[in-house]
Amino acid sequence: MGTVAIIGIGLMGGSYGLALKERRLADRVIGCARTQSTLDKALTRGAADEVTDDVAAACSQADIVILCQPPDAIVRMMPDITQGLKSNAVVTDAGSVKTVIVKAGEAYLNDPGSFVGGHPMAGSEKTGVENARGDLFEGATYVITPTERTHGSAVRTVWDLAEGLGSRVRVMSPEEHDRAVATASHVPHIVASALARAVLADPEAKEVHGTGLRDTTRVAAGDADLWRQILMSNARSVQDPLRRVEKEIASLRKALASGDSAFVEEWLATGAVMRRELDASRGSES
Amino acid sequence: MGTVAIIGIGLMGGSYGLALKERRLADRVIGCARTQSTLDKALTRGAADEVTDDVAAACSQADIVILCQPPDAIVRMMPDITQGLKSNAVVTDAGSVKTVIVKAGEAYLNDPGSFVGGHPMAGSEKTGVENARGDLFEGATYVITPTERTHGSAVRTVWDLAEGLGSRVRVMSPEEHDRAVATASHVPHIVASALARAVLADPEAKEVHGTGLRDTTRVAAGDADLWRQILMSNARSVQDPLRRVEKEIASLRKALASGDSAFVEEWLATGAVMRRELDASRGSES
Repeated sequence: MGTVAIIGIGLMGGSYGLALKERRLADRVIGCARTQSTLDKALTRGAADEVTDDVAAACSQADIVILCQPPDAIVRMMPDITQGLKSNAVVTDAGSVKTVIVKAGEAYLNDPGSFVGGHPMAGSEKTGVENARGDLFEGATYVITPTERTHGSAVRTVWDLAEGLGSRVRVMSPEEHDRAVATASHVPHIVASALARAVLADPEAKEVHGTGLRDTTRVAAGDADLWRQILMSNARSVQDPLRRVEKEIASLRKALASGDSAFVEEWLATGAVMRRELDASRGSES
Repeated sequence: MGTVAIIGIGLMGGSYGLALKERRLADRVIGCARTQSTLDKALTRGAADEVTDDVAAACSQADIVILCQPPDAIVRMMPDITQGLKSNAVVTDAGSVKTVIVKAGEAYLNDPGSFVGGHPMAGSEKTGVENARGDLFEGATYVITPTERTHGSAVRTVWDLAEGLGSRVRVMSPEEHDRAVATASHVPHIVASALARAVLADPEAKEVHGTGLRDTTRVAAGDADLWRQILMSNARSVQDPLRRVEKEIASLRKALASGDSAFVEEWLATGAVMRRELDASRGSES
């Protein structure tokens, strides 16, 4: 894959670096971050061969650029990336939303066809290059989101990268991707946070709580700034599934208030069947 | 503790039996269940010294009776238990709701003061005596719910039982208990089921799902018949916290629709702080 520049070398970027080195997929990995301590840790962990805080300099040497920052930073960074980019370089990203990022990539890059949106369904609640893992992508679904403007050769490059990392590639449009993750990830995050906000102020509830409450609210502990960016970037796709959740809760609440035991049992039984089927299916994003 | 009769010797009842034997808290443990295969397994596992399918016979020999069935069965069983009960026997239970069970105990037992409601905050997603564990109660909060009718000596007996099993005792009124578990356990179960019902019909969402969705919906896979009984028995206490969850979801949905980034960040940040505080507190119910 020649020279790969990883912009933002934390948990995700560091894992790309480790995997690219361990699997000998790249001749050279350049890690890029703002702080010297992150760059030092990336070198120490072997997640990059060289490091720099100069985005334009890193990108100008790269055959592939992988953007591994929060969505707002990726969008903001596009003008710096396109400066001095090699004519045949491919740019991809690992952001949790795709429509706004793909739009920015196609708007700012000199060659819009060189941008291929990507989203490896892999991650961790941990952060930082110190928690990066070379096997993070193994067995994960890796969504890539080309548009009609994307070069076929760029799609192939990112496809090969994803498979080289041990992932299974799934192609979706940016809009399809954003609807799917709204339902699978963003709505669960909102529901977990809503539950945490609604029940965790009660000291007696905390005293008798158990793994049920802990599991159901776990993701609510995630980074608020990152999640604000994700949710604001996908605000439209979460509306309908959120309304469905609200309706489901209200319908069960009313059935309990009216003593409709048959409704309650059927409602719970259907949910239980759907949840058990999920255990039989695959997926690995945190 | 003399002779202990355990009525319903599945995961919970079997764990009482194992713990009572391992910790030498009882001279004799009589296990009671409807099916011969359960009784055989209880004997094989050493969760009881003797077994029978005759509830009245088991109770008539007992100094302590522990009811380990779903709430409806506990209520239905009270008339059988009281027949031939020793005059100084103490009856307790391990049900997930307390108000309806304590009312039934005080209504049906010849000596209402001999009933002490109990709820060990311990459990497992697994079921059956084959999954019983003698250390299930260690370190758990064990709520007991005496009323003004309960004999002090009966409270002391159940208190000693709970501490003997390695639990920490917490005394609440039946109504306080039911409000606390509504918030800590029953509402999270409903929210998890509502989320499962609202999002898991989407095949693309399932394809890109990860541990976030799995954690947030995990408890929804629980036994629908048992949970119908629990929720119907605590229908009133779940109303207010469920409304709060619905309001929280709707407020975030509207803030996203109107692009109110500051509200979204503050909302997520507060939920994250509350959830992180939960990790610092204790609790062990599944």
